[in-house]
Formats: sequence, C-alpha cells, structure tokens
Amino acid sequence: MIRFESDYTQGAVPEIIEKLVETNLEQTPGYGTDKYCMSAAEKIKKEIGDETADVHFLVGGTQTNYIFIASALRPHQGVISACTGHINVHESGSVESVGHKVIGLPSEDGKITAAQVERTVKDHYADPTFEHTVQPKMVYISFPTENGTIYSKKELSDLYAVCKENDLILFIDGARMGYGLASEKNDLTLRDIAALSDAFYIGGTKVGALFGEALVITRESCKKDFRYIEKQKGAMLAKGRLLGLQFDVLFTDGLYHKIARHAASLAMKIREAFLTKGIELYYDSYTNQQFPILTDEQLAKLNEHFVSSYWAKAGDKTAVRFCTSWATPEKDVDFLIEKIMEL
Amino acid sequence: MIRFESDYTQGAVPEIIEKLVETNLEQTPGYGTDKYCMSAAEKIKKEIGDETADVHFLVGGTQTNYIFIASALRPHQGVISACTGHINVHESGSVESVGHKVIGLPSEDGKITAAQVERTVKDHYADPTFEHTVQPKMVYISFPTENGTIYSKKELSDLYAVCKENDLILFIDGARMGYGLASEKNDLTLRDIAALSDAFYIGGTKVGALFGEALVITRESCKKDFRYIEKQKGAMLAKGRLLGLQFDVLFTDGLYHKIARHAASLAMKIREAFLTKGIELYYDSYTNQQFPILTDEQLAKLNEHFVSSYWAKAGDKTAVRFCTSWATPEKDVDFLIEKIMEL
Amino acid sequence: MIRFESDYTQGAVPEIIEKLVETNLEQTPGYGTDKYCMSAAEKIKKEIGDETADVHFLVGGTQTNYIFIASALRPHQGVISACTGHINVHESGSVESVGHKVIGLPSEDGKITAAQVERTVKDHYADPTFEHTVQPKMVYISFPTENGTIYSKKELSDLYAVCKENDLILFIDGARMGYGLASEKNDLTLRDIAALSDAFYIGGTKVGALFGEALVITRESCKKDFRYIEKQKGAMLAKGRLLGLQFDVLFTDGLYHKIARHAASLAMKIREAFLTKGIELYYDSYTNQQFPILTDEQLAKLNEHFVSSYWAKAGDKTAVRFCTSWATPEKDVDFLIEKIMEL
Amino acid sequence: MIRFESDYTQGAVPEIIEKLVETNLEQTPGYGTDKYCMSAAEKIKKEIGDETADVHFLVGGTQTNYIFIASALRPHQGVISACTGHINVHESGSVESVGHKVIGLPSEDGKITAAQVERTVKDHYADPTFEHTVQPKMVYISFPTENGTIYSKKELSDLYAVCKENDLILFIDGARMGYGLASEKNDLTLRDIAALSDAFYIGGTKVGALFGEALVITRESCKKDFRYIEKQKGAMLAKGRLLGLQFDVLFTDGLYHKIARHAASLAMKIREAFLTKGIELYYDSYTNQQFPILTDEQLAKLNEHFVSSYWAKAGDKTAVRFCTSWATPEKDVDFLIEKIMEL
Repeated sequence: MIRFESDYTQGAVPEIIEKLVETNLEQTPGYGTDKYCMSAAEKIKKEIGDETADVHFLVGGTQTNYIFIASALRPHQGVISACTGHINVHESGSVESVGHKVIGLPSEDGKITAAQVERTVKDHYADPTFEHTVQPKMVYISFPTENGTIYSKKELSDLYAVCKENDLILFIDGARMGYGLASEKNDLTLRDIAALSDAFYIGGTKVGALFGEALVITRESCKKDFRYIEKQKGAMLAKGRLLGLQFDVLFTDGLYHKIARHAASLAMKIREAFLTKGIELYYDSYTNQQFPILTDEQLAKLNEHFVSSYWAKAGDKTAVRFCTSWATPEKDVDFLIEKIMEL
Repeated sequence: MIRFESDYTQGAVPEIIEKLVETNLEQTPGYGTDKYCMSAAEKIKKEIGDETADVHFLVGGTQTNYIFIASALRPHQGVISACTGHINVHESGSVESVGHKVIGLPSEDGKITAAQVERTVKDHYADPTFEHTVQPKMVYISFPTENGTIYSKKELSDLYAVCKENDLILFIDGARMGYGLASEKNDLTLRDIAALSDAFYIGGTKVGALFGEALVITRESCKKDFRYIEKQKGAMLAKGRLLGLQFDVLFTDGLYHKIARHAASLAMKIREAFLTKGIELYYDSYTNQQFPILTDEQLAKLNEHFVSSYWAKAGDKTAVRFCTSWATPEKDVDFLIEKIMEL
Repeated sequence: MIRFESDYTQGAVPEIIEKLVETNLEQTPGYGTDKYCMSAAEKIKKEIGDETADVHFLVGGTQTNYIFIASALRPHQGVISACTGHINVHESGSVESVGHKVIGLPSEDGKITAAQVERTVKDHYADPTFEHTVQPKMVYISFPTENGTIYSKKELSDLYAVCKENDLILFIDGARMGYGLASEKNDLTLRDIAALSDAFYIGGTKVGALFGEALVITRESCKKDFRYIEKQKGAMLAKGRLLGLQFDVLFTDGLYHKIARHAASLAMKIREAFLTKGIELYYDSYTNQQFPILTDEQLAKLNEHFVSSYWAKAGDKTAVRFCTSWATPEKDVDFLIEKIMEL
Repeated sequence: MIRFESDYTQGAVPEIIEKLVETNLEQTPGYGTDKYCMSAAEKIKKEIGDETADVHFLVGGTQTNYIFIASALRPHQGVISACTGHINVHESGSVESVGHKVIGLPSEDGKITAAQVERTVKDHYADPTFEHTVQPKMVYISFPTENGTIYSKKELSDLYAVCKENDLILFIDGARMGYGLASEKNDLTLRDIAALSDAFYIGGTKVGALFGEALVITRESCKKDFRYIEKQKGAMLAKGRLLGLQFDVLFTDGLYHKIARHAASLAMKIREAFLTKGIELYYDSYTNQQFPILTDEQLAKLNEHFVSSYWAKAGDKTAVRFCTSWATPEKDVDFLIEKIMEL
C-alpha cells in the first residue's frame, strides 16, 4: 500500500539525516542556545529580510499555535479564525485550554477576508455591552489553508491593513508553508509573509524535517519573554540542537523550497488526472493536498493500492484527501495516475 | 423614563427587604453554612422532590454557569450549546477562560434538539482522529432561552434521553426560570426540570432577589467537592446568610412563582398589543421578554417614554427587547400599551 | 453565645440598610454603570487624591485578589507573597487556578520586607536558566495582614521603591483596610496607601457593608480592559447599584473610618485584658484581630460564652482568634473582659 | 572543553541512530499509532509485568509532568512535592499554568517521607474551613531526585501505602530513571516502581535517546482519555514513530539499563576522587550527578578544562554539578579525576 493520506508519514530529507549522524556525539548547550539554532535563525532572518525578528524553534504545530496565542493575548481576548481553521477544529481545544475563545468566521474555502474581520471588530465595539463578549485581538490564518487554498498578496495585504487599523495581531500558521509558497498560483515570498504579518511559523514536520516548526515573531510587542512560556508549556526541547540543525539544513541553498516544489508539482499532476477523468475536486487546491470527490466504487478501486484520508460526505459521494510531500517518489504518483485513469 | 430594557433594574421583593432589615444584626456563621441557607435548601429540595440533591447559593449567573462547568468537566471536554446560548455570547468567554470549548450548534429560536446533540456526538466518535477534537461531554440549555422561548416536556425528555445514552451531563441555565415556568405555554414543573436534567439553577437576580442563583445538582457524580471550586473562583459569599435568606423567602408560600406569574401575564398583554398593531415579533416568546420589530419612527416614539434594549437589525427595521419583571407595575404596562396603540 | 470568631458575622451598618430600603424600587442601569457607583467612585478618588484612578466594585475579597492578578500578569509571571498571605493559604488555589504561581516568602508576622523582595528578584535574574523559573512580577501584601500586623509608612515606602526599581506591580489586599488605618500604631492614610502602591482594595465585607470591595487601580498600565475580565470571572454584579450604594454611604462623612475606629478601640481593650492577665499573644496585633494563647482550661471557660476561631497550636496551648467589628457592642466586649479577668 | 554540566548535551546511542537511518523513508501512520510505538509499549509492559498498563510516548519531561497532572486532577486539587522538586522550581510554573498548586514540603535531600505526606493530608481535613485551601490529591516524587538521591524500596512502599490510604495519586518523575535504577545503592526494579506507584515515566532524553519520555499509567482511573489531553497540550508527536523506535531500541536486550550503568559507575569514580581529595559533597548522591563543594580557586582550575553547572552557594564555597551520561567517555572521566587530584 502506498500512503497518500498525509504529508508526514516519513522521516526527513537525507541531508538532515546525514547531519544528525555526523553531529551525534558533539556536545552542545541545551534549550535552543546552541550554534545550530543560532545559524538557522540567522539564515531565516536573512531570507525574510528582518534582522530584528525573533526566531524560536518548537517541536510541533499545535504547540506553536497555542503557545504563541497564550503568550500574546490577555485573558479576555479571543482569536478570529476561519471556522475550518486548524485551531478551531483539530487541536483538541488547545486554544481554549489556555483560556481563549476561537471566534470562528464562516468560510467556504478555508480563507477569511479583510471585510469579515473588519465587520467582526466593528460589531464588537458597536455593542454597548461589548465588555460582556470576548474582545477580538488576534487574527489566525493558515498559509496554505487546511483545504489547500492560498491567500494572494492582495488578500494578505488587505487583511494586514485591517489588522493594523484595529490593533489586531495577525498570526499565520505555516505548517505547510513550503507547499504554499511553491504553488504555481502563489505570488508571495517568505519575505512578503514576514512583512505582512506579526508572527508566523515555517513548518518543518510536513516539509522535510523529522519534526520542528520555526516560529518567527516580527512584531516588537509580541517578542518579550516568549521563552519562559515556551518552557512552561513543555515546548522547549532539551537538545535544542536537533531543531536548529534541521532548519539550518533546510535553509541552506534553498533546500526547503526545492523539496516543496517537488511535492507541489506532483500534486498538480494528480489534480490534472482527476480533472481529466471528470472527477470534481472538493476544494480548488493548487498545493500539495488534493481533494477528489469519488463514488464508492471509485474509492474502493483506489483503496486497493493507496491510502487516502476521509474528508467529508458530498451527497452520495465522498471527498478524500491525497497528499504529496517532499518524500513522494514520482513513480508512486505515476502509478496513482495510472489507476485514476482506469476508474 | 420607564425602563423595560431588562429584568434586573430594581431591588428585591418587599418580603426580602423586610427580612434583611429584621435580621441585620443577627450573628451567623459564614460561607453558606447558616440556618437560612439550610432552610432555603430544604424548601427547594422539597419542591423538586429530591432530598438527595445538593443546593448551592451563588451570587450571579455567569458565575454559576462557568463554575459548574469547570467543576464537572475534564480539560479536553467541551459543552454543547445553542450558538445563541448565554455562555457562548454574553459571558466574555468565561467558559473558555476555565479551559473549555463551547460547541455552538445552529439555532433559530434559541433551542437545540435531541437530534442535533445526538448527531454531534455520533460525528465526534465517527472521526478516526476524534482525539484531535474537543470531546462533547455536557449539554447546556437555558430555560427559558435568551430569546424567551421554552422547551416543552417532550423536547426536554428527548434531550435528556440522548444525554443519558451518551453519558452527557445536561445542565440548565435558569436565570429566568420563574418566568419560563409561569408561561401560559409551559407544561413543565420545577420537579420535572429536576428530574430531566443533571443540574440546573433557579435564578434569583432576575426574579425577585437582590442577587443570587440557587444551583441544584442532582447527578451524583457532579456533586463532589463543589464548594472548593466555588470558593476558588470567588463565588462563596462570606455572609452566605444573605443568599439563603432571599431564597428562603422566595420559596415560602410559592412567592417565587407568584411574582413570576405577574411578570408573565404583563408580558402577554404587551405581546398582544404589538400583534394587534400588526407589529411582528422577532421571536415567538410567551415569557417575560418580548421582541417587537419596529420601524425607526415607531422606535423613536416609544423611546420618548421607555427604555428598551437593542437586539438586532431586521432588514430596515430593528428588533428591540421589552422585559417585564416581578417589579413592573401594571400601570407602566398600561401606559406602554397605550403608546403602542398610538404608533 | 456571643460570636467573636470573625468580623463578618453580621449584616451592614444601619445607614446602608436604610438606603437599601429607600432605593429598592428605583430603576438603574446594570453592571456598575449607575449613579451610585459613580458617586462612590468619586468620593474614593477624592479621598485618595487621585482623580485618574480607576475604581471597580466587586463582591468579595478572593474574587478581587485573583481577578486583579489575572488581569495584570502574563502566563509566566508569578506573585510574591508572605507564605502566610491569604492568596497563598485561604483562597483554595484561586491564583493558581488562573495560571500563576504564588512565590511564598518566609514571614513570622505576616509581613515581607523590601530586602526580601529585592533578593528574590535578583536571585531570579542571576540564574542563567532564569527562563525555567517563574518570573516574579507582582508583590502582594495585606494591610493589615492576616495576623493583624501593619506596615509602617517607612516599610511600605521601601517596598514600593524596590517594586518600582524592578518593574514589579505592588498590590495591597485591604480586606480589613479600615481596621488597619484605625490602628493606634498606624501612620498611613488611604492617600498614602494609594500613592505607595499600584492597586489596592478597600474592604467592605468586613468593614460595615453587607458585601463588597472597592478595587482602586492607580497604575496606568494595569487599568485597561479590567471590566471584561471582571465580567468573565463572574464578578460583575448585575445590580451594581447595590455595591455603589454601600460604598457611597461608607465614604460619606467619614463613616468608614468612624466604624473602623470603634472596632479597633474595642480590640485594644481586649488586648489589654489578656496582657493584664499575663496571657501571651501569638501576634503583636494592634488591629481588630487578637490572638491570645490559651491553656485548654482557659479556652474551655471562654467557650462557655464566646465563639472564637482556632488559629494554631502553640506548644501545649492553643492560639485562637477574637475579632471585633463595626457591629460589636461595647457591652459584649465588657462581658468578654470580665470573663478574661476570671480566668 | 569537556562538558559535564548536564546529561543531555549529546545525541543518542548509536543503535538508535542506525535505526533512524534505516527506517527513514518507511511510511507509518501518525500520532503514536505505528508499529514501533506498539512494540516499545509491549516491551515496557513486559518488563514491568503489567499488561494492562497504558504507555504513552511524549517528547520531554516538563511536558510529561504537567500533562499527566492536568489529566488527573480536578481544578481544586494540588500536588504535594518536595520544595526542591522539578515541578516546583524548574518548569516555569507549568503546573500552575494548568491551574494547580504545588504544595511544597521541606526537604534537605530532595526526598519527602510518608509521614510528611500523611501529616499534610490530616492537617488539611482537620481544618474546619478545609474547602478554603487546596485539596492535596497527588504526590509527586522524582526517582532519582534532582539532587541525585534515591528512595529505598521501604521508603517508596511506605509512601505508596499512605497514598492509597488517603486516595492520593502517586506519580514518579523518572527523567533519570535509568541512572537511579543503576545506582549501587538502589534496591528497586522497574517492576517495583510500577507496582509502588500509580504512574511514572521512564526518561529517554537524559538516558540514551535524542528525546522522549515513556509515561506509564497503571492506575485504572487515571487512564481514560489521556490522548486527548496529550494532543491538546501539543505533546502528541505527528511522527510518533520517532519516539516508539527509540524506546523500542532502548528496551531491547536491556540496553537502557546497560548504558545507565555505564554512567553510574563513572559517576562513582568521580565521587571517590572528590572524597579522596577531602572535598565535601553537597548531596550524598550515588547516581550520575555529583555535587562537589569547591573553593573559588578549585573551581577556576577545573573550569580550565571542564564545564560544570552552578548549583548553590555554600558559605564562601560553591556547590557545582558534574554529570555523567550514557555518552561520557571513560577517558574524559579519567582526565577529570587527574585534574581533581591536582587540586
């Protein structure tokens, strides 16, 4: 069976494994203060063009999301998110567990608009008893979204403008950042992402690393004392070197982007195959996740060779997810396409 | 100006005030261990026909809601509520502040159905990654709802049956309990409420008391150590006598129900007046809150004499709320009706 | 039996009761926005000489303590307190329940010193792994302390100077503020208290009111959005008028101080009686709480007429607490003294 | 410079690295449901002789501590710990951040006794206002302690007996479990540890793994729904295989214990060297951490070649920590001893 169910079924790019082997018995200080973390942070800051940014390396995505949110908000403040946002659906209530409401806005494609955010804030303060409702203070978006869609530069700029006008913090979940940037429809660079948000993270777990997310905080008021809270929530890796080393490798010679393009281009081949067969897609994704809507018979046939993941019922058909990743071999995709064509 | 904006603009029924004056210098032990609290609890237990219930007297509704929820749930568990539920909208995120997600279900009239709850639970466990989403463990409803509507005995029985089948805790917010029970459309008694839920509270603040809510816990597994948590959250009144005394008065000779019927019958007169004038109602309420949909001109005219509260935009009209209470004089209602008739 | 066990066994001063009766059916807006709250706040601001202070009226002491702390601290910050401080011992873990460690410092008499605080902060930052320990950010003291002792103007000035140097917030629990100010040993005014702290509260529950504490926030950075958090934690009384009215009465014509002096002077008579009989005191208190160390026989004799409260074992004797309050009749004290003299 | 400052300066045992390389491109399902986690759990359950235990693999120690505590306690409950316990000192307030007080008991050597725990519980319930103080519900100990000391089988048995009598949960932090078990003074096996506690964890980060702790829950009532909370707090590793694989290797052919014995025996050589030179030890440790008390001159000399970590001031001398680990080469220890002998 070939697994297309997610983009984290395998280990890490060979360059990372080699480096792990090579440095295994090297002695370094702990908790992210070693030279590998320093070097990786420098490379990221150089790429985004902001030497004053703070870069922290955490182990996973849920962790990064809720710890940054806990660090940045006061008790009465909530975070606006698409109702489909990962923090609102698939993190077991982590944001609420640190005391904050996720204010879910309706979304068809996983994105939210500047106008939606503006209306939410205006409505809040228009209510004479506004102190009886949660104060919107942060906007959380994912790039790409959980549905594979991406924000354009125009959309992100508008969103950030509304955030700045209303003193909201804009935070971008980049668990699949690489795959979003590598999309043929994308017009944003990592530098743009940094300039058009207050904080964001660059996902490693799904894009080439064994594990690890690089949180980048650019807004001055959100930087202070983050490490205390990272430690408190159990997210400060004792052997921090393991995180630094992985991002150091990924941000050397554009490796992160190169492996992401590999996944994105394979996903486009799968997309084309489904469309060629007249199979509709649940979301119009140009990134590494594809969501075909299959009949029971079609699904059964594909299930003979491939693992996909269930997404949603769509009438009497089923939407499932096929993911490519940095590790997907081209031949596996070709075999999948062959089987799609036989449907 | 006559205030119809809410049902808590005034003090307490004269019987309570008299008793406060009379007992002012009496010495009692603190924290709800005095004879007035005992007596009030006994009267409530007698009325609901459950001698084993635990009765706690708290100061306000938000407090009662979130403290009971905090006491009953483990960290990963959430509470199902109508999206319009008070805990989901008007308590500044108190439930989230103690770590729990409010799982909002769509509702037109403020109520949720047994079928909705069942589907939510079934969907949760049908997901193979259910541990990544908040576990539904409690159902919160309001009787009457924030919109003035009430559950029938059949609806509540169905809801409780689904809760029992799925090991969910059913908790009823009774901030306006009296007014719901006094509705001409109501077919439930307080005894039914107790038999068809795991915990509920009897609102005093809006129904005759200066302040105070009587939380009744009937489910054995929810009783343990509640007082610790009540104290921890700052809800254990030092001079607990003040709460016991008020409920003791309210539950003597059916006073609580008598004053509620007064408010309910005045509300029906207001309702009839609006309907007679062809003014539509935003919710079909048969309790003490009425929600007429007014033109700007109509609203301006009523605003000359009365304070109502803004509820929602309804096209180019506005839905506002008029409340009656135990304290509303019949003459004020007659004057309001006179002005409605002049619209 | 005459109760001397605490200073909150009875209702309120007659002036408050009269005002409650008189205003009972007056209609006011809710949640502390009424004219009584405004008036009471003005009187308090005038007395402390700070027109820019924020004054909030809450129901009880535990509530006031933990809500202010929750509002002022970020997740990794803790509050320094005497190990005997009320928040560290008798509030069921309320401060921890909102996420913060109470950093307990040793104390014999209930007070902590500027030097202790300074050392705690210096030690924290001297540790190279300081991010692995809770950051001290607030200092909590009680005036008078739980043991009846008081800070001198010099001691408080020194403490506040250290707080300012180290950017710590100084918060004073004034549950018994009146009795501290009324002590014959006291050299502080309420105006001094306000000038030498960032926030404090004036206790009503124990000093003349049915319930209620007036929180005064003087530090600009601690003022923002407090009401949201007050509401979230269930501490915003619907009929806020009840709180405003009580403090308005207490701060009219110096009533608050007058009734406190009554209690303090009676306590001094009790103190003298014990000392005259050669009975040692557990703490050297010049406020309304007295802690005689009694033999079993002495205690048994006093228990025939009076209720006191157990405090601590002291060898084979027992320290107990006798409290006076605004409500204590002089004749009860005379009778107590008579019985002390017979020991 | 040779680093003796901690036991987590290096990577993992070669057997783990080899396995990581070998399995890197293998596809496995996520979140700890893979065959490596299954296999590792089986091996651990076999070693402890409890097939019904639940085994969870988490990333780090702070994480494991506070998540288990959050999962097991209700809001008003606290955890008893030596004042020197890791959760009380070096986890940035993680336990408080999930709402629970750490009830610190005095300890000279890092251990607490059955008698201390019993007294704490008895005192709690003896207080008539016990609901105003945090309810002791869990006992947290470390094996070995942060000071290198260990509990004997007798001491642990007594402690667990008191816990069972008082319905307390006994939880053992085993961040350095291997080094405790490998101590020449130890009379406990892992099977004993499991039988004499309700939950414990086997540290990997400090004992041979890149990272990872194996939490073992033996008490039935503490097992339910742990994975939800693990996910919620960001501790469920996406590529769970990485954790399973490491513990699978460590628990194959007794590797875990073998590498721990290596560290313990080297530590004994260092201990002997210091004692031979007449240098006192701050704690009487027979495990992998040694705490010599050095003069400034002695410390300066050792600092020329070795990194140790500061522990405490001891008069005009300084206690520092030297750690050995699975990775410490014998030659480094010999060189250290040589330099000690030259002091």
